Amino acid sequence: MSADFAFTVTKTDGRARRGRLRVAHGEIETPVFMPVGTRAAIKGLTHDHVMALDPHIILANTYHLHLRPGDELIARAGGLHAFMGWERPILTDSGGYQVFSLSGQRTISEEGAAFRSHLDGSLLSLTPESVVDVQARLGSDIAMIFDECAPWPAERSVVEMAMERTLRWARRGRDRFLEVQAGRVPGLARATPGQAQFGIIQGGTDPALRDRSVSGTLGIGFEAYAIGGLSVGEPVDVMYDVVGHTAAQLPEDRPRYLMGTGMPDDLVECVARGIDMFDCVLPTRNARNGQLLTKNGIISIKNARYAEDLSPPDPECACPTCRRHSRAYLRHLYMVGEMTAATLNTVHNLHFYLDTMKAIRNAIEFGIFDQFRQEFHRTFSRRQVQ
Amino acid sequence: MSADFAFTVTKTDGRARRGRLRVAHGEIETPVFMPVGTRAAIKGLTHDHVMALDPHIILANTYHLHLRPGDELIARAGGLHAFMGWERPILTDSGGYQVFSLSGQRTISEEGAAFRSHLDGSLLSLTPESVVDVQARLGSDIAMIFDECAPWPAERSVVEMAMERTLRWARRGRDRFLEVQAGRVPGLARATPGQAQFGIIQGGTDPALRDRSVSGTLGIGFEAYAIGGLSVGEPVDVMYDVVGHTAAQLPEDRPRYLMGTGMPDDLVECVARGIDMFDCVLPTRNARNGQLLTKNGIISIKNARYAEDLSPPDPECACPTCRRHSRAYLRHLYMVGEMTAATLNTVHNLHFYLDTMKAIRNAIEFGIFDQFRQEFHRTFSRRQVQ
Repeated sequence: MSADFAFTVTKTDGRARRGRLRVAHGEIETPVFMPVGTRAAIKGLTHDHVMALDPHIILANTYHLHLRPGDELIARAGGLHAFMGWERPILTDSGGYQVFSLSGQRTISEEGAAFRSHLDGSLLSLTPESVVDVQARLGSDIAMIFDECAPWPAERSVVEMAMERTLRWARRGRDRFLEVQAGRVPGLARATPGQAQFGIIQGGTDPALRDRSVSGTLGIGFEAYAIGGLSVGEPVDVMYDVVGHTAAQLPEDRPRYLMGTGMPDDLVECVARGIDMFDCVLPTRNARNGQLLTKNGIISIKNARYAEDLSPPDPECACPTCRRHSRAYLRHLYMVGEMTAATLNTVHNLHFYLDTMKAIRNAIEFGIFDQFRQEFHRTFSRRQVQ
Repeated sequence: MSADFAFTVTKTDGRARRGRLRVAHGEIETPVFMPVGTRAAIKGLTHDHVMALDPHIILANTYHLHLRPGDELIARAGGLHAFMGWERPILTDSGGYQVFSLSGQRTISEEGAAFRSHLDGSLLSLTPESVVDVQARLGSDIAMIFDECAPWPAERSVVEMAMERTLRWARRGRDRFLEVQAGRVPGLARATPGQAQFGIIQGGTDPALRDRSVSGTLGIGFEAYAIGGLSVGEPVDVMYDVVGHTAAQLPEDRPRYLMGTGMPDDLVECVARGIDMFDCVLPTRNARNGQLLTKNGIISIKNARYAEDLSPPDPECACPTCRRHSRAYLRHLYMVGEMTAATLNTVHNLHFYLDTMKAIRNAIEFGIFDQFRQEFHRTFSRRQVQ
């Protein structure tokens, strides 16, 4: 394990865990939600906004940064932290999910993925080894392996093939990572020497395939493990079952990261199943679409009922948006297309997610997570606030 | 004069004036630049950004707010200050300039302007009286009269007719304003009882027409006077001449406001001619187009030469953008279309404008305005930084 990487579970409450994760750029209290800064910025926010929200770690996307401005350029700038002016930890995904979901023209082979740039149509490729190099240049604190995510629904054989290939790619990715970390790749800039690498468990919704993925990935050995291939369309109960089943087999002394999930109640339910780390574009993307998330449900700010509503979006929320602005003002900004609307909504939604994680951490700390979970579900609804 | 309105010239240096203006919501150090918040937000910024920039007063647009969300709605919310969560002074324009420049279908008559909404094609009208009422409902600290701005170039007779009509409208607007302020208009909400009203001098580039406009407008009597009808395409030297000629005839004990100007060097030159107040969309609009203004000239951030330039936009600038980010990062954000680019550029450009005004105030204070002016022109250029 990288010398800069350490994880301590400080308290458990049922299967929920309270922990502290150390990576090269700092410490992270878990369970944690990582806001998504796809192209080296959290959409709509400046550094001042982000610092006021106080996230312990953010996520950036390998695929997007590889295309623009390019990881070699970022390496010459001193790595992603220096490039974007962000001192705290960063996790980078591997680009696998983007290659499979965003690229119109792509060919997956045992070697890796060949695809055409969505920008200029040029032919590009990512391999298990090259994404290690890209992430070394970016210098994230946590790098993810290149994985193949099966669609949902899919034939078992399709899911199995993607899972088995992910295992072979994981072996190749780990080998490359260890070479890179040992400084045995001449000419490769490493912006963050203490980088950690997480393996990714695939296997769709099939417990037996998940089991084989866990066993194979643990056999290779990574700083920690993520659960991938979920939140791709499967019913939420199925997702919860797979998370519960898979998380239980992952080492207790390593953080468990559920990729790309989810709604606020998903965070609570998956913490209850032993997850420590989350990321999702939902709070930021929904903000730009005028959807405000609150502990009572969703406020669709364009609704005419808010035209003269002088109350804050969420009267119980302490975020800068709710402390200063009314639903009427936010609706006005949204309706006239002011970009400030997206910013104010994003500040609120991320505050809500990060505040929910803080409440989850406190509840575990005090051994009252189950009461918190029940109370959360009593008030929260995925429907619009009535 | 409104009891809430007071202006004191504290120092003069040549024709440049250092002053303090009191309006209903606070004090304003002059010369002052007013950032433009057209639709009740400065484009791309949140309240936290704006407060960090520390403007003494901002401008909002009567025409846009009349259309959406509507001044009656804003009045019911307690006025524009309450609606947008802004405690400091606000100046509202009269909508005249927008009616003449933005509306495709409009008819100007002695009564006022009839036009079709650019939003839904509905038939609307603004008259010298109705814009007083609209601005009373908005509750700005400073309201402007409804004026007719002649195009440039134009026949002398066209400019003369617009100027003479502006005078007649000014009389009607002042009469209505005094009725409103005396509380003699039943049913009209007044969000800011101590509102002030400024007259507007028209007359194009013709000194004789400007003289008649000054004389007629002073004859009506307003809290203060603005110079309108400039920065509409005329050469900059002509603009300076008209400003110098007109400002010299305006009362020394009232602030002089030059509407809709301009480039940074325009601010310096017009302060030298006795102007106290400015507004312009240039710093905010150019920011969104990737143009950064600095004391050395303009940085067009999309230029490939900045792709790997790790220096701040302006190494001498103390704004949050320059303190944290490089040209390379700002170029990346602009090229990939992140809205954060517009925000960071806007913060810088407004900081530069407000900082320039502060330097102007200090120079007048210390009696070294002429040295400042020479030094400013020595470094500043309207061309791109080399």
